Amino acid sequence: MSKPQLYTSLSPALVHLYDVSDAIVVIIDVLRATSTIATALHNGAKSVIPVATVARCIEIGMSIGAITAGERDGKVAEGLEHGNSPFEYPPSFIQGRDLVLTTTNGTKLLHMALDNGAKEIITGSFPNLSAVCDHLMEKNMNVVLGCAAWKDRVNIEDTLFAGAVIDRVKDHFDIKCDSSRIALNLYRSAQPDLYGFMKENEASHYHRLTGFGLEKDIRYCLTPDGANVLPEFVGDRLVIKA
Amino acid sequence: MSKPQLYTSLSPALVHLYDVSDAIVVIIDVLRATSTIATALHNGAKSVIPVATVARCIEIGMSIGAITAGERDGKVAEGLEHGNSPFEYPPSFIQGRDLVLTTTNGTKLLHMALDNGAKEIITGSFPNLSAVCDHLMEKNMNVVLGCAAWKDRVNIEDTLFAGAVIDRVKDHFDIKCDSSRIALNLYRSAQPDLYGFMKENEASHYHRLTGFGLEKDIRYCLTPDGANVLPEFVGDRLVIKA
Repeated sequence: MSKPQLYTSLSPALVHLYDVSDAIVVIIDVLRATSTIATALHNGAKSVIPVATVARCIEIGMSIGAITAGERDGKVAEGLEHGNSPFEYPPSFIQGRDLVLTTTNGTKLLHMALDNGAKEIITGSFPNLSAVCDHLMEKNMNVVLGCAAWKDRVNIEDTLFAGAVIDRVKDHFDIKCDSSRIALNLYRSAQPDLYGFMKENEASHYHRLTGFGLEKDIRYCLTPDGANVLPEFVGDRLVIKA
Repeated sequence: MSKPQLYTSLSPALVHLYDVSDAIVVIIDVLRATSTIATALHNGAKSVIPVATVARCIEIGMSIGAITAGERDGKVAEGLEHGNSPFEYPPSFIQGRDLVLTTTNGTKLLHMALDNGAKEIITGSFPNLSAVCDHLMEKNMNVVLGCAAWKDRVNIEDTLFAGAVIDRVKDHFDIKCDSSRIALNLYRSAQPDLYGFMKENEASHYHRLTGFGLEKDIRYCLTPDGANVLPEFVGDRLVIKA
């Protein structure tokens, strides 16, 4: 039997090149949306609702009594209650609650995957690396690893995560995709010190975040399996896959 | 004095993200358009006219008595005289002639750069690596390295060439661009055996070409300075920079 295919889309501006209609799409936004999503769900959140704008975040937050979160320029956005850091969502705070999270790059990609009829949409980052990989190997379906990037510009951290996934699952897939090879190569160069690699390579997002004193967030977002659950997009929200 | 900026666009579908209006754009299509362009000019061609379609190629060829070249599925396209291999253009054949070359990916990118007001457009591949790097360091202007890719999909060979350029010129530029870091990292992993790296990584274009028995072409296109001239786009054609 032939193996399913795996492709990597390094930017939302490239995702239209891949057929997602019979594939699992993995949304990757390492710093920090998909890390925070895994963490909130792992810590007991009922759901995470990703939205593109602050206005939509406030609207949904009010209508269902959800926690609202999102940042602009490294600060909690006006009108919202919380920021994007995974450390803002410990069990004592998030358990049993819904979280509406403003995330520009990730939400854009998610809606592109939806509009193109993706079979299944899950989110991945290092905190749930194993859950993602185990699921992909078990399902035996085509996969598109979708990097959220930064305003469509390819970034190091999402590419690294794609590479980490490929490193684990590659024997189960037929990979005819140079972007996947590039991601795997990058990950292997960066391992075992992903944080050091980001710093040394002056990754653009590393600079944006450390400028706000968020080294701790970055280290957490680059560490495997700190919140090892599988968020799946169902309806309009992410929940732990049943 | 601050250094000029350098960016890498890994696909034509990403080039709109970069401001080319005060930049030198380097069109990169290693297998094989920009390798063949450098070779033809190095061997004495008067000019190379890149066009997107076979029909346009025939039209220009007839109107100015130029050699027409282009391939479809690894064979000389119907109505054209020659293929895309750099070995088809020795001095004895090409000296003093104009060559109209059909190249889908490279021509698309070239016209995007033109439409967006690029200050200068040059072409690069390993056969003219030094000429490109020397020029970029001398000009002290912003640079966008534009990979032609394959039907908008990022490819290994163009990314490798971007990395090779960055490896040489990086101290002369301010590089705040993760794609450039990824390209540099890829190149450093692949060096000193670029051909072996392409083969080992099952680069998609490597397979397309070796399927037609073109290993010799690939080795040539990955070898530095075999045709070390600087093609510049002037009017509607590429000529050796004055």
